[in-house]
Amino acid sequence: MAHITLLTDFDDFYVAAMKGVILSETDARITDIYHAVPPQNVRAASFMLANVAPWFPAGTVHCVVVDPSVGTDRRALVVESGDQFFVGPDNGVLIPAAKEVGDPTVYDVPYDAESNTFHGRDVFAPTAARIAEGERSYLGEVIEDYVELSLPEPSFDEGRVKGEVVYVDRFGNAITNIDGNDVLERVSFGSEIAVNGAHIVFEDTYARVERGQPVCTIGSHGNFEVSVNQGSGSKALGLSQGDKVTISFGDL
Amino acid sequence: MAHITLLTDFDDFYVAAMKGVILSETDARITDIYHAVPPQNVRAASFMLANVAPWFPAGTVHCVVVDPSVGTDRRALVVESGDQFFVGPDNGVLIPAAKEVGDPTVYDVPYDAESNTFHGRDVFAPTAARIAEGERSYLGEVIEDYVELSLPEPSFDEGRVKGEVVYVDRFGNAITNIDGNDVLERVSFGSEIAVNGAHIVFEDTYARVERGQPVCTIGSHGNFEVSVNQGSGSKALGLSQGDKVTISFGDL
Amino acid sequence: MAHITLLTDFDDFYVAAMKGVILSETDARITDIYHAVPPQNVRAASFMLANVAPWFPAGTVHCVVVDPSVGTDRRALVVESGDQFFVGPDNGVLIPAAKEVGDPTVYDVPYDAESNTFHGRDVFAPTAARIAEGERSYLGEVIEDYVELSLPEPSFDEGRVKGEVVYVDRFGNAITNIDGNDVLERVSFGSEIAVNGAHIVFEDTYARVERGQPVCTIGSHGNFEVSVNQGSGSKALGLSQGDKVTISFGDL
Repeated sequence: MAHITLLTDFDDFYVAAMKGVILSETDARITDIYHAVPPQNVRAASFMLANVAPWFPAGTVHCVVVDPSVGTDRRALVVESGDQFFVGPDNGVLIPAAKEVGDPTVYDVPYDAESNTFHGRDVFAPTAARIAEGERSYLGEVIEDYVELSLPEPSFDEGRVKGEVVYVDRFGNAITNIDGNDVLERVSFGSEIAVNGAHIVFEDTYARVERGQPVCTIGSHGNFEVSVNQGSGSKALGLSQGDKVTISFGDL
Repeated sequence: MAHITLLTDFDDFYVAAMKGVILSETDARITDIYHAVPPQNVRAASFMLANVAPWFPAGTVHCVVVDPSVGTDRRALVVESGDQFFVGPDNGVLIPAAKEVGDPTVYDVPYDAESNTFHGRDVFAPTAARIAEGERSYLGEVIEDYVELSLPEPSFDEGRVKGEVVYVDRFGNAITNIDGNDVLERVSFGSEIAVNGAHIVFEDTYARVERGQPVCTIGSHGNFEVSVNQGSGSKALGLSQGDKVTISFGDL
Repeated sequence: MAHITLLTDFDDFYVAAMKGVILSETDARITDIYHAVPPQNVRAASFMLANVAPWFPAGTVHCVVVDPSVGTDRRALVVESGDQFFVGPDNGVLIPAAKEVGDPTVYDVPYDAESNTFHGRDVFAPTAARIAEGERSYLGEVIEDYVELSLPEPSFDEGRVKGEVVYVDRFGNAITNIDGNDVLERVSFGSEIAVNGAHIVFEDTYARVERGQPVCTIGSHGNFEVSVNQGSGSKALGLSQGDKVTISFGDL
């Protein structure tokens, strides 16, 4: 069975127009990844997609519309990687996920859209449907000069790791770009560390601390995150997406 | 494959009861149009449905529950139009969409509901499931005296168009009832116009202006809308659903 | 056709990882019950599930992840009841629904999770998929010492019923744990009653009172609820989840 996923920042009835277009062309099953991506936040969407895509079956076509440059001359892309496909605008949103599941081949997809404001419906949805149906003739050239997100890399020096918050989830968990294993190599669960100067215990799950207490852990995505058990780590530490995070170990 | 769509203002777990009822009676696929319609806002729902329905395949059954008069003697309707069906309360919500896709025939559907407060589950969901299964025997009389929404029509005079905001979407785009082509006949893309006195450029897409700048455009629905590139046109111009909008052209 | 439902407090892209896992193992159809359960609110989720589960077809597998103790030694359960299955943590969330649809048999499900923070993806989703595929070998012992929610029971004395608010829905309806029929035995529709001292009319549906006026009714779940026609009963009477409600009849 063919699968199409949808990831957008629409959070409104517009998603349904895309679904209507897809259902008119294919019996592929449609699964929503998320539609309440912060508006035009390409980084947040790319983080979500990279985390979720590896769990989907072979052949899945991921259709992503977080597209601040809709209607300009930015290209439309189909990326084939591992055994999955990614459809969306050429703004970098697809690439981290495509690298997560394999070695990406990036196709330019020429288009002639009915509207200048809704390529989700007029370009990306029909493209995703055609790929799910096995059609490939409309794919353009393989390109190398596609846009990549310049995602910040964490830096390590003696006793410290510096990174930043890539996403704050519904629970208020402030998820960083720091690999949890890089922290675990330096300090064991149960130890106290300092996050931007605040002393917080590092544990293997939230419920190791009392309700309302801060805790650092390794989230399900493998990243280091700052949380509060049954509360909001983001609020407690004043951490928003893009904020810098410095973790200190050893003599605090 | 049969398709049923759902459009409600429930935004809560109640939608799932409707889905359970439908899945108990048919293998038709269910697609959500939207469930966060502003509570009891029949006009907003009718706007969404009319925009989305044309994109769905032949035979789709649209089930709509925005129903401030649930439990009173208001009628339940099935509307057949083009090659689609519309199921919902007799409050006008179905009619604009039905007219969008064809020439509507409106059936009264007699019912005897288990609850007085949840006809979505007890009347409309089972009706939609039966239509998707091809059953028609329970349809009542064809009626002519169904409720129609008195949607305001825009008015045109020399150098001015007057309309109103029909919906503010997630991005803060203030979508009007003015046909974008009626504006485009009077002024070309790249020109400045006045919206309620504020001078704003009219462009073919949002990204023609700098981030944070206001822009008027023709949305994917074909309607004239007031936006801010990567911001909120609704906030910037103080425009809410129902607000009057006057567009002036020429000597500003 | 096999059916899996999902009920979580994730309200974020995490749900999609669960769906990817499920779709990788089964063609069962997936239906969302609700994902915006108030965070870690086991009671609210148990109320929703008990209300919705009876409407789903035989064989449905309900997968519930509202799980404040994820990563601790709390058990994972599969509950078989009536002709349905319930998968989730051993915190009481599954039991009221299981009792609603039949006589529950509760299985402990041993697990060895990849993550300590996302058993929805690593434990419950794969378990639900296997049940939908008819696999049963991994079920552990039948247990009797599973956790039950200590839900408050309403109390009745002459001229009064005392209960509490179990959920406030999207419309602001304050839904109590008081069976609507217990009220209807004591007073007929159209009568005035007192709710925490405020005099409110008891009607069979919201629209019996003017827009903006408070009204008590029996909701679609059969429970007594406090509402405002096209407004919020919760706000008007200051009622939140867990608040006590005293209904007085007779001489007010």
